[in-house]
Amino acid sequence: MKKLAVIAFGGNALLRGGQKGTYKEQMENVTETCHALLPFLKNDYNLVIGHGNGPQVGNVMLQHEAGHHQFGVPGMPIDFCVAETQGLIGFMIEMGLGKTFAKEGLKRNVVTLVTQVVVDKNDPMFQNPTKPVGPYYSKEEAEKYAQETGAVYKEDPKGRGWRKVVASPKPIAIQNVDLVKQLAEQGHIVITVGGGGIPVIEKADGSLGGVEAVIDKDLASAMTAINIGADEFYILTDVPKVYINFRKDNEQALDTITVAEAKKHMADGQFTEGSMAPKVRAAILFVEATGHEAIITEATRLGDPTCGTRIVP
Amino acid sequence: MKKLAVIAFGGNALLRGGQKGTYKEQMENVTETCHALLPFLKNDYNLVIGHGNGPQVGNVMLQHEAGHHQFGVPGMPIDFCVAETQGLIGFMIEMGLGKTFAKEGLKRNVVTLVTQVVVDKNDPMFQNPTKPVGPYYSKEEAEKYAQETGAVYKEDPKGRGWRKVVASPKPIAIQNVDLVKQLAEQGHIVITVGGGGIPVIEKADGSLGGVEAVIDKDLASAMTAINIGADEFYILTDVPKVYINFRKDNEQALDTITVAEAKKHMADGQFTEGSMAPKVRAAILFVEATGHEAIITEATRLGDPTCGTRIVP
Repeated sequence: MKKLAVIAFGGNALLRGGQKGTYKEQMENVTETCHALLPFLKNDYNLVIGHGNGPQVGNVMLQHEAGHHQFGVPGMPIDFCVAETQGLIGFMIEMGLGKTFAKEGLKRNVVTLVTQVVVDKNDPMFQNPTKPVGPYYSKEEAEKYAQETGAVYKEDPKGRGWRKVVASPKPIAIQNVDLVKQLAEQGHIVITVGGGGIPVIEKADGSLGGVEAVIDKDLASAMTAINIGADEFYILTDVPKVYINFRKDNEQALDTITVAEAKKHMADGQFTEGSMAPKVRAAILFVEATGHEAIITEATRLGDPTCGTRIVP
Repeated sequence: MKKLAVIAFGGNALLRGGQKGTYKEQMENVTETCHALLPFLKNDYNLVIGHGNGPQVGNVMLQHEAGHHQFGVPGMPIDFCVAETQGLIGFMIEMGLGKTFAKEGLKRNVVTLVTQVVVDKNDPMFQNPTKPVGPYYSKEEAEKYAQETGAVYKEDPKGRGWRKVVASPKPIAIQNVDLVKQLAEQGHIVITVGGGGIPVIEKADGSLGGVEAVIDKDLASAMTAINIGADEFYILTDVPKVYINFRKDNEQALDTITVAEAKKHMADGQFTEGSMAPKVRAAILFVEATGHEAIITEATRLGDPTCGTRIVP
């Protein structure tokens, strides 16, 4: 049997700090990340790629806001915006992979699935939305929109204004995950759970319907990896390793840590929410469920053995 | 063997004349169209759905324009916009189908593929772009953008301003069409070639890359139907039948026409470009390639035997 790996591309696989996000920038970044997959491609791995969409869905929400303001185009809820970014980013990764294949004379097929991820409508996170999304508003605007729509707005801690906050509920089921497994085992590279997946809940009639939320992409990728029986799980980020005392005098890079050690560092508050904490949490989930290792490493240095933190049982 | 049908949803399956395009309107429309698939679902057909994206990609382009203007978010070329609409509309159709399944107690799985469609970079249509897309500009703005980007702008015949025009090249290959066949034959309802597919050409390095163009969705759906060996091909529109002398005193609805008759009516200019002509052309393509019938009918009356024009060999 060929090895099956799930690789979660972080936001910076596509868009880096200080960049505006032109398609040329994003294509250059994603192509560089795709080139870093070469060791997996050369070793004939079966591959599934998950990816974030933070900057892209932020841009889509700004575009919806501006389109409504300038042209009267109705804006869409965030679940629809996530769906848009799955098409957009899936296409970009497919092109990036295509360039790598062309350069290296490889032949692999790629398929991108638009992926819904089910969350529990009673998830307690819905009572306490924390994830800021979309444009900044003045306090007056935010209060007006909150009253009109029932959405929750909070003041930005850096004083940039008020933003809508949505829940980040736990993924409980990945739609079409059996197909992801089937296609990956057939040798197709499968791109799925983009942006953590389109958040859906079970409606009164039993069908699934979108809900305004965002799902952590590392957690959704970990669940995918568990569900498809992946042998390896990689989370790509913009630093070479996981650190304790990050950016302090006593900063220490971690080469290999056990789940128990990882949990202790989590409890000690070593990892920032919205940055390393969700990655370590997703790695723990995978390692505990499968007994395999998870690796958190720098996107463009995926094959580099001097890079990466291994989370082991 | 179960019957395999390809059904091409027209733009009005999602957005109707006079509507702004709120997500509620679009969800209502698409759900109504999905309910019309009931005869196929009850008769246990294997199903592939293609769909248009005219109004949606128009809105996305306006949103990109406005987002750039108001927030400095870089706009994206039309191929990226098409990719966005594939995610968006695929998600909407999946939800619409889910409501139908729930109402009727059916269990079917749905999968949406982000789909690239290859066109020939030497397609003569690239020398003569005719398809207007995106916002209207003043003559001065259009001349400025044309000079900056090399894009072609033409004056709107109805005097609404100047618009970018892009080529509408012929689809020559549908990416992952073998997978579409495999998945459909496994019983999954497959949503593909959204908006006619993301237009790509073969680049110098042999990889596929996006190109500013739009592909006719009826033609791309017909090619899909031919490639997967579909038994039946349906093109949904907003009128119950194909007509000659449409909206004239001697208007005549067509129940059944041969390919030869269809070609004669085409040559006589009976069908409008951008409306019925591409549908009849796609139907002819399918019937000639397969020897099966194609049916052009009203979206919400798909199962109604008093509706529809059959194009036969």
